[in-house]
Amino acid sequence: MAAAPEPVRDIATLGSIELLTPKPQQSLWYFRDVLGMEVAHTDGNSVYLRGYGDFAVSTLKLTGAKHSGVGTITWRAASPAALQRRARALEACGFGVRWSENDFGRGPTYHFRDPDGHSMGVYYEEQKYVAPDDLRSTLKNLPQKYTARGAAVRRSDHLALLCKDVATNRRFAQELLGFQLRETILFEKGSFELGSWLSPNAVHHQLAYVVDVKGANGRLHHISMWVDQREDVLRAADVLTENGIFIEAGPSKHNNSQAFYLYSYEPGGNRVEIYSGSYLVLSPDWEPVTWDEDERGTGVYWGGALPESFIQYATPDIAQAAPVGRDVPVFDPA
Amino acid sequence: MAAAPEPVRDIATLGSIELLTPKPQQSLWYFRDVLGMEVAHTDGNSVYLRGYGDFAVSTLKLTGAKHSGVGTITWRAASPAALQRRARALEACGFGVRWSENDFGRGPTYHFRDPDGHSMGVYYEEQKYVAPDDLRSTLKNLPQKYTARGAAVRRSDHLALLCKDVATNRRFAQELLGFQLRETILFEKGSFELGSWLSPNAVHHQLAYVVDVKGANGRLHHISMWVDQREDVLRAADVLTENGIFIEAGPSKHNNSQAFYLYSYEPGGNRVEIYSGSYLVLSPDWEPVTWDEDERGTGVYWGGALPESFIQYATPDIAQAAPVGRDVPVFDPA
Amino acid sequence: MAAAPEPVRDIATLGSIELLTPKPQQSLWYFRDVLGMEVAHTDGNSVYLRGYGDFAVSTLKLTGAKHSGVGTITWRAASPAALQRRARALEACGFGVRWSENDFGRGPTYHFRDPDGHSMGVYYEEQKYVAPDDLRSTLKNLPQKYTARGAAVRRSDHLALLCKDVATNRRFAQELLGFQLRETILFEKGSFELGSWLSPNAVHHQLAYVVDVKGANGRLHHISMWVDQREDVLRAADVLTENGIFIEAGPSKHNNSQAFYLYSYEPGGNRVEIYSGSYLVLSPDWEPVTWDEDERGTGVYWGGALPESFIQYATPDIAQAAPVGRDVPVFDPA
Amino acid sequence: MAAAPEPVRDIATLGSIELLTPKPQQSLWYFRDVLGMEVAHTDGNSVYLRGYGDFAVSTLKLTGAKHSGVGTITWRAASPAALQRRARALEACGFGVRWSENDFGRGPTYHFRDPDGHSMGVYYEEQKYVAPDDLRSTLKNLPQKYTARGAAVRRSDHLALLCKDVATNRRFAQELLGFQLRETILFEKGSFELGSWLSPNAVHHQLAYVVDVKGANGRLHHISMWVDQREDVLRAADVLTENGIFIEAGPSKHNNSQAFYLYSYEPGGNRVEIYSGSYLVLSPDWEPVTWDEDERGTGVYWGGALPESFIQYATPDIAQAAPVGRDVPVFDPA
Repeated sequence: MAAAPEPVRDIATLGSIELLTPKPQQSLWYFRDVLGMEVAHTDGNSVYLRGYGDFAVSTLKLTGAKHSGVGTITWRAASPAALQRRARALEACGFGVRWSENDFGRGPTYHFRDPDGHSMGVYYEEQKYVAPDDLRSTLKNLPQKYTARGAAVRRSDHLALLCKDVATNRRFAQELLGFQLRETILFEKGSFELGSWLSPNAVHHQLAYVVDVKGANGRLHHISMWVDQREDVLRAADVLTENGIFIEAGPSKHNNSQAFYLYSYEPGGNRVEIYSGSYLVLSPDWEPVTWDEDERGTGVYWGGALPESFIQYATPDIAQAAPVGRDVPVFDPA
Repeated sequence: MAAAPEPVRDIATLGSIELLTPKPQQSLWYFRDVLGMEVAHTDGNSVYLRGYGDFAVSTLKLTGAKHSGVGTITWRAASPAALQRRARALEACGFGVRWSENDFGRGPTYHFRDPDGHSMGVYYEEQKYVAPDDLRSTLKNLPQKYTARGAAVRRSDHLALLCKDVATNRRFAQELLGFQLRETILFEKGSFELGSWLSPNAVHHQLAYVVDVKGANGRLHHISMWVDQREDVLRAADVLTENGIFIEAGPSKHNNSQAFYLYSYEPGGNRVEIYSGSYLVLSPDWEPVTWDEDERGTGVYWGGALPESFIQYATPDIAQAAPVGRDVPVFDPA
Repeated sequence: MAAAPEPVRDIATLGSIELLTPKPQQSLWYFRDVLGMEVAHTDGNSVYLRGYGDFAVSTLKLTGAKHSGVGTITWRAASPAALQRRARALEACGFGVRWSENDFGRGPTYHFRDPDGHSMGVYYEEQKYVAPDDLRSTLKNLPQKYTARGAAVRRSDHLALLCKDVATNRRFAQELLGFQLRETILFEKGSFELGSWLSPNAVHHQLAYVVDVKGANGRLHHISMWVDQREDVLRAADVLTENGIFIEAGPSKHNNSQAFYLYSYEPGGNRVEIYSGSYLVLSPDWEPVTWDEDERGTGVYWGGALPESFIQYATPDIAQAAPVGRDVPVFDPA
Repeated sequence: MAAAPEPVRDIATLGSIELLTPKPQQSLWYFRDVLGMEVAHTDGNSVYLRGYGDFAVSTLKLTGAKHSGVGTITWRAASPAALQRRARALEACGFGVRWSENDFGRGPTYHFRDPDGHSMGVYYEEQKYVAPDDLRSTLKNLPQKYTARGAAVRRSDHLALLCKDVATNRRFAQELLGFQLRETILFEKGSFELGSWLSPNAVHHQLAYVVDVKGANGRLHHISMWVDQREDVLRAADVLTENGIFIEAGPSKHNNSQAFYLYSYEPGGNRVEIYSGSYLVLSPDWEPVTWDEDERGTGVYWGGALPESFIQYATPDIAQAAPVGRDVPVFDPA
């Protein structure tokens, strides 16, 4: 009898997130001067940014656009062979879009859409960051000097996407991308999947899918920036408040993920989390933690509850913009 | 032309460390009452312990013995097939010892020795911790209540072994266990490998090999316990000092690993680190960071320098005990 | 021309707070096992407690009573002469009650009531804490070993009292006790004083008067326990939650006082704050900071807003118990 | 029988420190860009600086000079009458120098020298800081926006002076300035006073006298800048190291004062401490904590020991510059 196939482990990590903003100058001010990120590159309508601890040359691409929201999300493959395998599998299942030549800092990328229509890509080759003299760290294993500017976020950590149907997108991430399901919110006696948290590596989650209460496709709930200490999140709250940035929720402690966080809106309207703590998952047989209505509660372990806007607001904000509808393939690999 | 073989990724994580102690009662007091760990099981001469955040039923096995030092170190395989592959590979290369039946909390284990002679094992099946009522956490994703006792370490993090020849043992870990080399200290223009830090996953290192200046085999430099915040390391320094425990070095910040740490001696004589911070490695093509004499300096980024004892002292302490000499196979897979 | 008289500076500091509880055993568990305080003495229906950093033998007296609320609040005079001066001044203004012999740990005390009727006392002689062997610290300037138990609060910090008329009680504290007004909330174009924060020393406030929205007398809003780091407040939130203690608000940052805090209810029903940060006031000519409706906002600088219960609930809870009415002298020293 | 006179309490707080530097531009860079202080005023050869939490318009005066060291140290009186009393008392005892007109931000100042010859002044009137629009805080009780620049020190905290004879200077501070002795190091069975820590208010110490092992007069050991959290000291260590600033000692925890600290050298050569924690003293009858040779140990509670330079080096550095000898009055008020 043949053994069960071993799980797919072709994706190594989240690579980069493209954020769309109708206010590019103000958004740049937010990420560079308030969060303390560095500009690595500028190209036309896009600015490429990085945290001082990001080893890749850039992990955040800020692109001027008519509406806010998320552009292309890229994932790094574990090897050249893994990249080819994922490209073939995605194409075979009908999610594939095309190969593209290099975007700044990344090699050939196979583009695809998740079942909800979010634009994604997978690549292997990545340009390492080499700091110019004035940004060289005195720590040999730190890619860039700790400039201590503003909230001084260390690196991009994860993102959360809204979608019409969490289960479908979650299964896509598990089966086609090989992500492990870490936690999931199941309401109505398990029949309604409100949100799911997934990861291709030890980081608690690098991708979350949460149901879009407005029934749209392709929207962004938030991106998340890592700081090393809970105290850094508190300090970020001071920095954001002194700079007139709206803090929607937190500093508080999530129940799912256990992370300590705050949520702000960058000037372009996108929700940005400052995030620390959480826990690593190293178990190959991790059993997803499930939360029902009672266990989920107000969405926090302690600290101020998540407000209604946390459910209602996402980008693009479809009170103003039409839904990003698109014809998406049905995910049914069976 | 055939593509290069993909790297071995059969080990998921460090599983457990057996620590030998000539003062088992005092060592138990140290780990339970001062570090705040829980006793999960007792069996003959051994006590099985866990941090409140360890998902496995136990990650530290404390065994009464004539001398201090390290017993068997176990690694968890990524799948049942991965376990079989590693067992076959280790046996084929002459490092294999035998299969054993289950130790507490772990399934069938293939035992082997590293080139320096340290006793190791690899297994797949693992017993998850299920807390009794009085230790159940109010956080559903936390395996056990945060009791806040003493230094309240969260989980076992890594260990550092001494060996006669770092390069040989490091290559063994890379090639036979599939670990990625993260950082290495190379003195004398690269000809002398003083120490190397390796990991099978995103944790910066779960295993370090450091040269044994006394030329012995099979000794332990330290085991390391994780706390979530740098502030917790400072608090641990208060707790240890109030309990009369010797702090050998730190709180300080390592240059390699960037971690914030302190080193204490548990009553049995073994060196125990309290550790936080560091950085995750998610790159499949990570280039090891190398440190020469000048870059290594005093071994710290800032804070009190590592003392001479940090080089000279290890367990068993061969000023008192004879070296753990043994006939070890030469690792030369080429 | 005669110079203006120098300000009264006869009170050195808050001495102790007596807390009334209808559930003395559970309240004791809360303060000793959850907050980590030590029992210094037991006498009849009262238990005398202390934080590890309190230099006095006790700063919190827990007394079993039919209702929750505050008992006698004592203030330490700056000198024997200062004690006599305050006793004479309080008596002359009609607030005096009587001299009493020693309560545990304190010398002769002159009792009085504030205009709202809260029971207070002023004393000079105080018993220093001398730790028994098992509680002796390894730090010579720390009165007691840091036991690291539970939230491990360091010392009593301040209290907030409700009253019918804030202005009257605030002027009493300024003029008869010599406290400096630090901050005040003035609504309705300055005509309504919602709350005032006062102190006899550099601590931001040791006494707050806040208006009782239920129009009662003599009630307690909260007592407050100090921890050294904001991170300790976060840790306390974990400890309280794991022990099933209700956190009413926070961790958040106050706008007035700038302190980082959380509020819990001890089992007897009294509100207890865990508190850190804030700022010292060393200026003899400090100009009180005033907050109007807009500036006060939700009562926080950032973090979860103060809930309605923060205004409505106090002890004794007069939804269940009749108001502690009493005939109080009118404070009109002019 | 006449009662004992009440203690002198005429000094409210440390007002400002003048620091002399042979490298004014580099020193300014250190305090403004690395420590994150603000320039409040410039006048000739002096720049007036402040921490974001200093209520006075300036607390640090940086003056270009041939040698490093300390200029004039000013103390704020508790009232106009207190200023007159101190001026008369200092003049009567032979320590007085002269009244001066206003230095920036401070009213009429009576100048004097301590027994060791350090230049000091006492004043009452002080200019409060009013932030320009771009530096206005969103916190009404914070005098200036938290800019989060560099180490972002909050305020000036204290200073330590070297002197030939600690006991003489300590008694001067106690008897003529009314400071309370908080801690003292007494070697050789109490016959040799190595150092003493004093304060006019609840802050643990605002002035320390330490013996000058080179037998000189009028030298400075260090000035100290406050940050709110121990974590901020760790962060400062990162900031200083990234900026190439030498850290002489720490981050570590003092035994006396319990404070968490690091010491750096600013480019002009003066030692600057980054400091947090410690404890408040509110007792009018505080018994000084004494430390003998054994208790003092390496000068730390935990963390790296204080190095030899901590004893040997001070400013001006008399290995290069001649001692600042001066004819000082003998303090013998009896």
